[in-house]
Amino acid sequence: MKFELETTDGAARRAQLVFPRGSIQTPAFMPVGTYGTVKAMTPEEVESIGAEIILGNTFHLMLRPGADIIRRFGGLHDFMHWRRPILTDSGGFQVFSLEGLTKVTKDGVQFQSHLDGSKHFFSPEKAIDVQHAIGSDIMMCFDECTTYPATREHARESMEMTHAWAARCRAHWESLGADHQALFGIVQGSTFEDLRRESARALVDLDFPGYAIGGVSVGESKEEMRQAVDWAAPLLPEDKPRYLMGVGPPEDLLDAIERGVDMFDCVMPTRNARNGSLFTTRGKVNIKNAKHARDFGPLETEWPNPIGGHYSRAYLHHLYRSGEILSLRLNTLHNVFFMLQLAVHSRNAIKNGTFPDFKRAFLDAYTSGE
Amino acid sequence: MKFELETTDGAARRAQLVFPRGSIQTPAFMPVGTYGTVKAMTPEEVESIGAEIILGNTFHLMLRPGADIIRRFGGLHDFMHWRRPILTDSGGFQVFSLEGLTKVTKDGVQFQSHLDGSKHFFSPEKAIDVQHAIGSDIMMCFDECTTYPATREHARESMEMTHAWAARCRAHWESLGADHQALFGIVQGSTFEDLRRESARALVDLDFPGYAIGGVSVGESKEEMRQAVDWAAPLLPEDKPRYLMGVGPPEDLLDAIERGVDMFDCVMPTRNARNGSLFTTRGKVNIKNAKHARDFGPLETEWPNPIGGHYSRAYLHHLYRSGEILSLRLNTLHNVFFMLQLAVHSRNAIKNGTFPDFKRAFLDAYTSGE
Repeated sequence: MKFELETTDGAARRAQLVFPRGSIQTPAFMPVGTYGTVKAMTPEEVESIGAEIILGNTFHLMLRPGADIIRRFGGLHDFMHWRRPILTDSGGFQVFSLEGLTKVTKDGVQFQSHLDGSKHFFSPEKAIDVQHAIGSDIMMCFDECTTYPATREHARESMEMTHAWAARCRAHWESLGADHQALFGIVQGSTFEDLRRESARALVDLDFPGYAIGGVSVGESKEEMRQAVDWAAPLLPEDKPRYLMGVGPPEDLLDAIERGVDMFDCVMPTRNARNGSLFTTRGKVNIKNAKHARDFGPLETEWPNPIGGHYSRAYLHHLYRSGEILSLRLNTLHNVFFMLQLAVHSRNAIKNGTFPDFKRAFLDAYTSGE
Repeated sequence: MKFELETTDGAARRAQLVFPRGSIQTPAFMPVGTYGTVKAMTPEEVESIGAEIILGNTFHLMLRPGADIIRRFGGLHDFMHWRRPILTDSGGFQVFSLEGLTKVTKDGVQFQSHLDGSKHFFSPEKAIDVQHAIGSDIMMCFDECTTYPATREHARESMEMTHAWAARCRAHWESLGADHQALFGIVQGSTFEDLRRESARALVDLDFPGYAIGGVSVGESKEEMRQAVDWAAPLLPEDKPRYLMGVGPPEDLLDAIERGVDMFDCVMPTRNARNGSLFTTRGKVNIKNAKHARDFGPLETEWPNPIGGHYSRAYLHHLYRSGEILSLRLNTLHNVFFMLQLAVHSRNAIKNGTFPDFKRAFLDAYTSGE
């Protein structure tokens, strides 16, 4: 992986990540494909609307179809027919939110599968092994995503576990000779400035190809999310990519881009789509609302739109109310495209040195309502 | 509508229907798009795999989104963004299978909506009015689809109702000046040879642009289905299209093509797809079966295949087991394409005078198992 920083606009960065499987223009939004599919989309569609990287969930894929099957396929790319880069999370976020979690030690985590009750042991080494089998282009360190809110004492303990595990992930990654897969470290520290700074420094000392800010999108306020970035981002190396995990709605993306973050993932565009909540430049539209039943106009008028030219709001409303699968498809296509477009516009604005103007104009329209 | 008979092979016919919106090569399979969408597919996809006409369900569309909304859109084509011809059923089949059915008279049928409990009156004239609003290229007469099994007495009464309603549909269609929409009459008569013949003659006397054989796919045996066609088809005009309603699995299609039927519709390809039951030239494949979990081979090896080149059986199995929407999409795309290919192969065989050979070879492979 090469990281090429092209230009900055304040703290905002315009860069690219270069992989053998393709480059990723940043700031980048990464659609989430939990089980080897971005829900409701084909890989061709995901590519056609401009996604350059997708995210896969290690924990889910380990349980179904299993690392063994993916390994025998030569990796997730071939299994799911996606040719461009893939980032995998470490499984930490999921494993710590499990009801079947039975035991956490310094060694790792014991848990039972929610699918079939089978027992599993997950550790830093195992997380790297599974991601190695998946063959992702970017792997994440196994971390403990500190719950919110956390006491200072718990946040410190949790952070120190994350640091110890990061060192073990890095060592195991080296021992596998898997350096064609870039390994990212994850900054924790909850809502505490000193811990966030300490965590950033500790991870930078371990020298990873890239860095993530984790422990956000866990229930904290927008202000707390911004602070986590404010505290950590300036301490991360300028010449390496920065990824804010699990974020987020358009306004949060722009806040974080402004603070120097390069990469984002979030299930919101796909999940909201399935609930009929659609992003537009004039704010969110709830397509199930009766007012759309006779609205022959398009969903979005400002930005280009893969479905806008064809389908009226009335038709999208009808599909949603009829429980049609096509509703899930078109809504998903629309929302994911919207997030990708938000990244495109952000990149152009940074290049032109007009990111603050773009952000202000976008938010003015986005919060104006229809 | 023009009907052009190109050639025959025994009783089997190779023809085309010509409409301003496009021609339909027959024998033709018509995918079912109940609520203004072929379930899980975009119109572009439906067209891309070779469908030349789709079916819409008048009864469903009348209740949701309602004839009024479709009329204000200028018809179903624009509402759902499908440019090629559409055939609508009359709503009779659905209205007679309703639990909310309250009263049947010579005038028509009173029923309550299963969606919101609202009361509706449906009659031959109303069925034509709604189909007129929908703007379908082929409309069907409102008929009583005789239940199976039926006594001779009930079958006769029901048939006579269908004939009286056919005459009223025809008169109302003429009064609307809607002859850009072809109106098809429907032969009933249940499992009785004399009634089937009488019904065919009565409808031919009314002089429709096309004819359907109805009252099949209602629980009868394959032999009874074949008999219904054997009795009626020879009495229908050679220079008009013949449509066997609601049929069916590949073997039934071939039986009916051999007996001179031109058009088919069936929900089986789309419904089976959603249940993981997939058509292949080597018979049906149940993709949820565990034996596919590690099968890296394609689903179909003989016929060209819109998904075969990309996705292994193992991936399709994984998607199905994970409850992914992409499973519904790929399975549907596969099954509908299979039925369209079956029609393509049948047409080529009739043209070459080899339909019996094609049928035998297809069934040999199809029933051989994998």
